Amino acid sequence: MSLSLYCDLMSQPSRALYILLKSIKCNFEPKFVHLRKAEHYSEEFSAINRFQKVPVIDHNGFILTESVAILKYLSRENIIPESLYPKESKLQARVEEFLEWQHAGIRLHCAMYFRVKYLDPILLNKTLEPRSLAGYESRMENALTEFDTKWLGRGTDFIVAGDKPTVADLLAACELEQPRMAGYDPAKFKNISVWWSKVRDHFNPYYDEGHVIINKVIKKQSKVVSKV
Amino acid sequence: MSLSLYCDLMSQPSRALYILLKSIKCNFEPKFVHLRKAEHYSEEFSAINRFQKVPVIDHNGFILTESVAILKYLSRENIIPESLYPKESKLQARVEEFLEWQHAGIRLHCAMYFRVKYLDPILLNKTLEPRSLAGYESRMENALTEFDTKWLGRGTDFIVAGDKPTVADLLAACELEQPRMAGYDPAKFKNISVWWSKVRDHFNPYYDEGHVIINKVIKKQSKVVSKV
Repeated sequence: MSLSLYCDLMSQPSRALYILLKSIKCNFEPKFVHLRKAEHYSEEFSAINRFQKVPVIDHNGFILTESVAILKYLSRENIIPESLYPKESKLQARVEEFLEWQHAGIRLHCAMYFRVKYLDPILLNKTLEPRSLAGYESRMENALTEFDTKWLGRGTDFIVAGDKPTVADLLAACELEQPRMAGYDPAKFKNISVWWSKVRDHFNPYYDEGHVIINKVIKKQSKVVSKV
Repeated sequence: MSLSLYCDLMSQPSRALYILLKSIKCNFEPKFVHLRKAEHYSEEFSAINRFQKVPVIDHNGFILTESVAILKYLSRENIIPESLYPKESKLQARVEEFLEWQHAGIRLHCAMYFRVKYLDPILLNKTLEPRSLAGYESRMENALTEFDTKWLGRGTDFIVAGDKPTVADLLAACELEQPRMAGYDPAKFKNISVWWSKVRDHFNPYYDEGHVIINKVIKKQSKVVSKV
């Protein structure tokens, strides 16, 4: 079996797959595609993924993009264990209900906030006017409120059910780390804070390993803010 | 077997599921939730879907939201035939790669354009300034270009492969109908135009049946435009 993961640990779904594969002791080869160096636009990588995005897997020559499709495929191929991706049809449907919801439910809003608040000023020297930025923050807060109250806070430790996390929890946890780099901490939501610690604990030490780079950015950013 | 589909034919994924279930002669009960009358915010419907959105299915008492999760579940339950949702792992992964891509790939941009150009002026009496509207149109055109060239135009009749459509094609086709109500016709893209006719033909007469209401809106809109 040969499995390569093209990824950059600055990318949320890249981190989720990296942490997942590490935590299940999968023998895979991480291939880092440095987004900051625009390596995803290179001819070599464009030949692997015409959409020029990470993550991508190469499983015995079968190349697949889209993190959620990759999770489903690795589950079918019995690389991800049933405890993390249920096989029973209704339980699987509950995990997939979240995997589909999160695209526009949290990912979009957390990623856009990170982009306009942190990335665009660095990469494009473009700073948004305060009113527009407040709009992005408000939409992200609505999304986080929905996640905090409609997925969490329903009497279970994790998103779907039971006392163990699934791929749904890991994907969500990695998405929520992104706005922290832009100075916003979703842990201010009560249910998120409690749940987040449990997800981290379950996947550690790999969770922290996958977040080494972004935790450095967060630390640096907090120093910048405290100096202002 | 009892299967109900809560839907509104103004909603893109509602139409996709409605047309799909009709075309495979599934014995289901459509339960219309009229979005224009805000029926999705009713206490009764909120108890069915806490996210107050359509489509939703009730399959022998199992309630499931999120159109893509519903498609996967109905495939596992052998309600959707293998020809429309492949069982073979790699082929299934190709279909799911598209199902995941389309959330932010086309759905987001087509839906937002429809909302700001058509819906907000009617529901909120809010008209966007031309520059902002042009931004939404431009992002939608980029998305349609990507769909036209990176998913279509690769030498096959349909999105994934082969000479028959899958659920991926039907979902995409229904999304692309939405901006037509706002006066924008994605058929101006060459590959989309050819592919779209084939999808319509395959799923007819149910495709047209599912689009009766929105085709009336499109006709009415085109008269308004021609009078201006």
